[in-house]
Amino acid sequence: MSRPITIAVAQMGPIPLTQTRADAVERLIGLLREAAQQGSELVLFPECCLTAFFPHWFIEDQAEIDTFFEREMPSPVTQPLFDEAKRLKIGFCLGYAEIVDEQGQTRRYNSSILVERDARIVGKHRKIHLPGHREHRPKNPFQNLEKRYFDVGNLGFQVWNAFGGKIGMCICNDRRWAETYRVLGLQGVELVLLGYNTPLQIPEYPELNPLVGFHNQLSMQAGAYQNGTWVLGAAKTGWEEGVEQLGESCVIAPSGEIRAVAKTNKDELIIHTCDLDETIPYKEGILNFDINRRVEYYQLITQQSDKNK
Amino acid sequence: MSRPITIAVAQMGPIPLTQTRADAVERLIGLLREAAQQGSELVLFPECCLTAFFPHWFIEDQAEIDTFFEREMPSPVTQPLFDEAKRLKIGFCLGYAEIVDEQGQTRRYNSSILVERDARIVGKHRKIHLPGHREHRPKNPFQNLEKRYFDVGNLGFQVWNAFGGKIGMCICNDRRWAETYRVLGLQGVELVLLGYNTPLQIPEYPELNPLVGFHNQLSMQAGAYQNGTWVLGAAKTGWEEGVEQLGESCVIAPSGEIRAVAKTNKDELIIHTCDLDETIPYKEGILNFDINRRVEYYQLITQQSDKNK
Repeated sequence: MSRPITIAVAQMGPIPLTQTRADAVERLIGLLREAAQQGSELVLFPECCLTAFFPHWFIEDQAEIDTFFEREMPSPVTQPLFDEAKRLKIGFCLGYAEIVDEQGQTRRYNSSILVERDARIVGKHRKIHLPGHREHRPKNPFQNLEKRYFDVGNLGFQVWNAFGGKIGMCICNDRRWAETYRVLGLQGVELVLLGYNTPLQIPEYPELNPLVGFHNQLSMQAGAYQNGTWVLGAAKTGWEEGVEQLGESCVIAPSGEIRAVAKTNKDELIIHTCDLDETIPYKEGILNFDINRRVEYYQLITQQSDKNK
Repeated sequence: MSRPITIAVAQMGPIPLTQTRADAVERLIGLLREAAQQGSELVLFPECCLTAFFPHWFIEDQAEIDTFFEREMPSPVTQPLFDEAKRLKIGFCLGYAEIVDEQGQTRRYNSSILVERDARIVGKHRKIHLPGHREHRPKNPFQNLEKRYFDVGNLGFQVWNAFGGKIGMCICNDRRWAETYRVLGLQGVELVLLGYNTPLQIPEYPELNPLVGFHNQLSMQAGAYQNGTWVLGAAKTGWEEGVEQLGESCVIAPSGEIRAVAKTNKDELIIHTCDLDETIPYKEGILNFDINRRVEYYQLITQQSDKNK
């Protein structure tokens, strides 16, 4: 048996602060066209890929912060991406900053959407594990203000029947948490799509800088193997307004093996055919959840955080 | 700051069916002495290291099966190990098959104990994730009858204050499950001790044979990094009564990096000094549980297994 799906992981180089939203969309359309020409059915774009990754800077004026967010999706400026995808009959997964009114409150999320080949939005994820800090840290070379600028996602971790398989999404730091993959895995996920913006420096722990790429891969590889799922990661990379970011966009098989990695720090497509049936030996074998999991001994996981603090 | 502890991972070659329990204990004592001579404070022995790994064979006679189990610990035959450890002021972690009467029922567990430098047993784990099958599979080159011969452990995943740190245990297949490390991590574990007997062949999925070593390391590396803990694994290895087993006993740092791996398929010591304070950047940094975990979205983990089956 075989259930192949050809996917393009669309890594992106930096988006300068001066680049307009329309220009960023034009870049996405260029990548989409190239992916379609190479036979892809689905394109994975990075986290927050319509603008520079603004949590890296402290901005006092909320109105200025809000210029980085999308009030509707699609909007007049992003509609051309949806139109071209529909014309090419290619799906995509897109990360963006989302501002929305919910029950009379303004909420801001770090979101991604899954768009089918007819341009319908069929799934949405809002990042749950926001990294970084709330307060300005002026001594740091750059900020990581996701906890300040975003609300914690309120959609949980969902799996959608799409593209002939079971597809889940998560975003950037979500990928470091075993719970992310397991909640998706328990819903039978076969393909996890994620984007990231990951600096090569950790200001608070510079001794960990050399391990940034290793930790990126280790987290995705373990999530893939332990849940029998493909995991694909698309990076925004290169020097973006003074912050150097990890690239290494990648395709991880259900075995946990790295099947492909981006070679540049620029816009680059990785085209890979993923056989969703490669998940079977893992889901049915030694890691078969139904006959092996012992939830009675996992209760601490949903009850509390570290009680030793 | 530094909290070093020097540990010997004591890999063991095969234990033939003809080797007596007393001879096996003599081997353990030899490894213990060498470890002490090299400055170790603690020795980690493999899973079920007093006998051949009997779940690899179908045995009909329960009385014969029970000969592989320990009715007391220490017993007259294992007491010399405790005596020598006390004399040398060295602790150890020992895996063995345990038979016990509980509430009028005979129970059999795949267990390990943590023994302090004064020979007191300070912790016990009973393997929770039993791999394999209950029924005889006569066409397989060997069996994996842990689900037949053992009961699921009933002690959960615990962490003990010992050897100047927070120590947890798990056994073999427990190490493939992210929940194992997370439940220990939530109790602040700094050092996870585990033993394993892992065949190099997977009879049901021979296409996965080349990945046995990779999956062994990946699981331990991810558990270490994602919980900021040392993870040490001691294998029983080599050809044991016709079954070839993985060695690659190892020391994994809280970064997830492999710090040392056994080089042989025989009795071999890896001596390594683990600084328990190397856990700090992980426990306090990007993976800080208190400020980052979102248990409201993890509920599926403790509620159910794969509902898509």
